[in-house]
Amino acid sequence: MASEAEFLDGYDPSAYERLTLAVDLVLLGLSGGSLAALLLERQAHPHAGRWALPGGLVGIDEPLEAAAARVLRDKAGLTQAHLEQLYTFGGLDRDPRMRIVSVAYLALLSERAFAEALAGGSGLVAATLDVPWAGEAGGPVTARAAGGAPLPLAFDHAEILALAVLRLRGKLDYSEVGFALLPEHFTLRQLQDVHEAILGAPLNKPAFRRRMLDRGWLSATGLREAGTSFRPAELYRFQRPR
Amino acid sequence: MASEAEFLDGYDPSAYERLTLAVDLVLLGLSGGSLAALLLERQAHPHAGRWALPGGLVGIDEPLEAAAARVLRDKAGLTQAHLEQLYTFGGLDRDPRMRIVSVAYLALLSERAFAEALAGGSGLVAATLDVPWAGEAGGPVTARAAGGAPLPLAFDHAEILALAVLRLRGKLDYSEVGFALLPEHFTLRQLQDVHEAILGAPLNKPAFRRRMLDRGWLSATGLREAGTSFRPAELYRFQRPR
Repeated sequence: MASEAEFLDGYDPSAYERLTLAVDLVLLGLSGGSLAALLLERQAHPHAGRWALPGGLVGIDEPLEAAAARVLRDKAGLTQAHLEQLYTFGGLDRDPRMRIVSVAYLALLSERAFAEALAGGSGLVAATLDVPWAGEAGGPVTARAAGGAPLPLAFDHAEILALAVLRLRGKLDYSEVGFALLPEHFTLRQLQDVHEAILGAPLNKPAFRRRMLDRGWLSATGLREAGTSFRPAELYRFQRPR
Repeated sequence: MASEAEFLDGYDPSAYERLTLAVDLVLLGLSGGSLAALLLERQAHPHAGRWALPGGLVGIDEPLEAAAARVLRDKAGLTQAHLEQLYTFGGLDRDPRMRIVSVAYLALLSERAFAEALAGGSGLVAATLDVPWAGEAGGPVTARAAGGAPLPLAFDHAEILALAVLRLRGKLDYSEVGFALLPEHFTLRQLQDVHEAILGAPLNKPAFRRRMLDRGWLSATGLREAGTSFRPAELYRFQRPR
């Protein structure tokens, strides 16, 4: 048998079918207390006028994480967000141009990062997400501009958004995921709003508060909400349980 | 602006860089009470003589799930296993031939499916996995043939295996994942062995048993182990909690 070096010398990569790889970023945050994703209106074909996740093609010499970080920087003006690989979407007809397989990444943005990305200048818009509760499968996702009319979504991006919300749902009850979206100091009402937005279902207030306090995740700050005239609520901060 | 149809007519997909996509399957089961993966010894370059996950290239017109199901059928002789997408590995140097991005899938095989795949004739071997506990990151994985000497692994497959074990670890405490590997009737000792193999750490026996019983996952069958002469242990079966 020839050596591996000889084998590689004679190897012809062009004998194999190739496809195009992309990354798409699901950048989630809170907008007016609701769960929201950052979307861009497509200016060019295909799907011009529809709304898409910020994304881009992966270079042949570019690691996937580097491509995701590049899109984050170029389209959202962010360098810091923690990107987690969500899922790889490889349906045959997801793009009318050619076979493009997309590796989707998820980042939960703090209030500050979310505002920074919106102000970043590349035209991102905060679209609130309605994902009705439908058990483990989740319902279809509807994205709305400022809580208004539904935005038509490009490609399979409704599916990507729905999976991102499902991933959050799965983690909500045993991880810090709900706190990543909140400001440093928050009220129990804000925390419940985040959970309800992710779950797509209302929660029982006393049971929710008891569960959160039992988890040992909450630390009272001794501070109260400012700017509300009537019975300002207490502010909490997240603490890592021992 | 031209219509989308006109745009697509003039579109040249060859203007984009393309790469090769593969699927690799992590097929886990139990071998002699230990966590084990099905591996194949590579007969050809590159990495001839090293051990690899069963895998294959994705066809240009083949959905990812179809490619994974094809590899499952062709290399493990299985048509039934539940394949879950694990992670996409896109490092630049993972294959010396060319840039190959791999979408890894994970399946937990029952005792019967694991035996069927071993007997399937394509040369799969059950390699037991040692993954020492090292917190959330997990330790490096060592695969051994029949508990013997370490098997050298091909490509980044040690990394893929380690991530599969981490995924199991993350799910073990709040999902049915541990039971998928066990036969229908099992002893509490077998259940603890599975958990210890996945966690890479010993567990306190009374605390473990109490936790499993508290979960409401276990149903006593009233049966006892056969073939052990001394104090045969009670057999349990998994039940979905209410």
